[in-house]
Amino acid sequence: MLALAASPLGIRTLVVDGSADACAGQVTELVVADWSDEVALDAFADRVDVVTFDFENVPSAVAERLAARVEVFPNPRALAMAQDRLTEKNLFRECGLGTPDFAPVDTREDLIGAVERIGLPAVLKTRRLGYDGKGQFRLKTQDDIDAAWAALGEAAGQVGLILEAFVPFEREVSVVAVRGRDGTFRSWPLTRNWHVDGVLSLSLAPAPGATDELERAANAHARTVAEALDYVGVFALELFVCNGKLLGNEMAPRVHNSGHWTIEGAHTSQFENHVRAVLGLPLGDTGVRGASAMLNWIGDMPDPAPVLTTADGHWHDYGKEARAGRKVGHATICAPDAGSLREKLAAVGKGLHRDEQVQPAIDTLA
Amino acid sequence: MLALAASPLGIRTLVVDGSADACAGQVTELVVADWSDEVALDAFADRVDVVTFDFENVPSAVAERLAARVEVFPNPRALAMAQDRLTEKNLFRECGLGTPDFAPVDTREDLIGAVERIGLPAVLKTRRLGYDGKGQFRLKTQDDIDAAWAALGEAAGQVGLILEAFVPFEREVSVVAVRGRDGTFRSWPLTRNWHVDGVLSLSLAPAPGATDELERAANAHARTVAEALDYVGVFALELFVCNGKLLGNEMAPRVHNSGHWTIEGAHTSQFENHVRAVLGLPLGDTGVRGASAMLNWIGDMPDPAPVLTTADGHWHDYGKEARAGRKVGHATICAPDAGSLREKLAAVGKGLHRDEQVQPAIDTLA
Repeated sequence: MLALAASPLGIRTLVVDGSADACAGQVTELVVADWSDEVALDAFADRVDVVTFDFENVPSAVAERLAARVEVFPNPRALAMAQDRLTEKNLFRECGLGTPDFAPVDTREDLIGAVERIGLPAVLKTRRLGYDGKGQFRLKTQDDIDAAWAALGEAAGQVGLILEAFVPFEREVSVVAVRGRDGTFRSWPLTRNWHVDGVLSLSLAPAPGATDELERAANAHARTVAEALDYVGVFALELFVCNGKLLGNEMAPRVHNSGHWTIEGAHTSQFENHVRAVLGLPLGDTGVRGASAMLNWIGDMPDPAPVLTTADGHWHDYGKEARAGRKVGHATICAPDAGSLREKLAAVGKGLHRDEQVQPAIDTLA
Repeated sequence: MLALAASPLGIRTLVVDGSADACAGQVTELVVADWSDEVALDAFADRVDVVTFDFENVPSAVAERLAARVEVFPNPRALAMAQDRLTEKNLFRECGLGTPDFAPVDTREDLIGAVERIGLPAVLKTRRLGYDGKGQFRLKTQDDIDAAWAALGEAAGQVGLILEAFVPFEREVSVVAVRGRDGTFRSWPLTRNWHVDGVLSLSLAPAPGATDELERAANAHARTVAEALDYVGVFALELFVCNGKLLGNEMAPRVHNSGHWTIEGAHTSQFENHVRAVLGLPLGDTGVRGASAMLNWIGDMPDPAPVLTTADGHWHDYGKEARAGRKVGHATICAPDAGSLREKLAAVGKGLHRDEQVQPAIDTLA
């Protein structure tokens, strides 16, 4: 989607990926190379003017190696910081953004101590390389400690662990924002998100019921964090709304699934603004065209007809092979207002036999 | 732009072009082959499920050869009919759409006779292979006959000639429409166009001041012509408004420059609906998001900043080398209403020092 957005700007793209069937290869030239292949990475760097990424688990050593030869945005330090749930949460707190209670866990003893201090329920997570609910174990009672350690203890030595308090949040929201090379900051309206099994299932934007105060607070936090990192490009700040207050969950240093609705729902998409930012072009305005809902397709693509026949309904098939738990595409439904969006979503849910997936949006838009 | 629109639908594209630097090669696989290379064309046909084109001068023999191996939309007969200004105008008249007076010209004597019958001013044009004002000669007085014949007489034997009365039209408009495999017909709102030296310079949509009656009449003509040809895909019907009545100028059997604004200005773009039509997918709705203006960039790309900094302004750089008279890109400016579109266009015109190019739109939107 970045390559598709770059093309009309006259920007040619070259993608490096470890897999020969990476879906970017459908729309741009693909260099197949592992992160460990320094010769290939150097040759790649020599062919481009600017490097960026849409996958946050690029090893920071790779980002730094590339940065020695070519400009890399966001900068490797920002990437490294956001890759690690511990440094990320410490940064949030330094920036004045509260977080759920947390504690680093390196040993089984650390885990027992952390559970004692933080209480239960809590979630044990890998500090690095986790995404979409992968590398997580939820603890409900003391009896779960053994199982949690059995599941993730081995990872403690490689990527570190963190125990996070489970927060009884009212809502999950995200700020998708962009910061330019010159420090210009813009954000799209707050987006409300629903996850199923740790994977984003549904987003609504602008987040219904978000007060101006909440919106302002979320934006201020996003801006402070971005400035602390001298961040350039698009990022998402995932937040919990808890007793009406915001808690920082995580920062994704890249274009984000909760911003996919901006392709059709906003004047400038997150993808186009990321390209503009990393190239030093003026940022586009982040105004919206109405109300939008994004539905993720996990595992396999449903029948496109109910979306294709919906007015202002948009289909995104990533051309990936079907696989359980894999994000293979999404749809965005746009409407001039919340009421008509609700009607369209109800019809799409029925047409796809996915009433359950759209129900939270329908309840919220009621 | 067709390949970019196909990608989110999960459709892979393969493009054949005689030139190795055809701009589609930036976003999809390109087969470089001449129209005369039957082996390459057959191999191309064997790799795809459906063939279509975005360039109307594909020799109809090539379209027919491909159609023997694979589905081709629009069908080769429709292509052949629309390629020839004479058969096209005869078709318009059969379909009840008036045209400027015209006469076929094969010899110098024909030209003299045609001028006598049709009167002056008139335009001598090649019947086939002309576009963007190429292959045309305007006759103002009898004295121009020699120069016109000197310029185009040689082409008479290869592509035929036609003399067309010069019509003192009030406006040029186009219907961009799409017809599905099942006969479903949809059209975008009437677009008003301004040409400079025979090349489209500016489009406004919806065409300001177009009455419901004019809109209905234009749509009815487009539909009748499409049905007569069993046309499948997007096409444009270019019309003159003359004393409040519509006259058929030409039909472009392809996505059309006067429909480029639909990328951002409509719920479904002409490119996406063309892909949907030729693949037999349901057509998308052609509703608009407000008012749009499209500015063509001819020869070379201007500074992008004034467009990139305009709210809902969109840049399209085709990645082509600069060349006098060549369409190298366009910009679309969208706005919720005519008044704000006017303001944005005035600012963009000033920023680009292209006040002249935007002035007709500003006058019309006043």
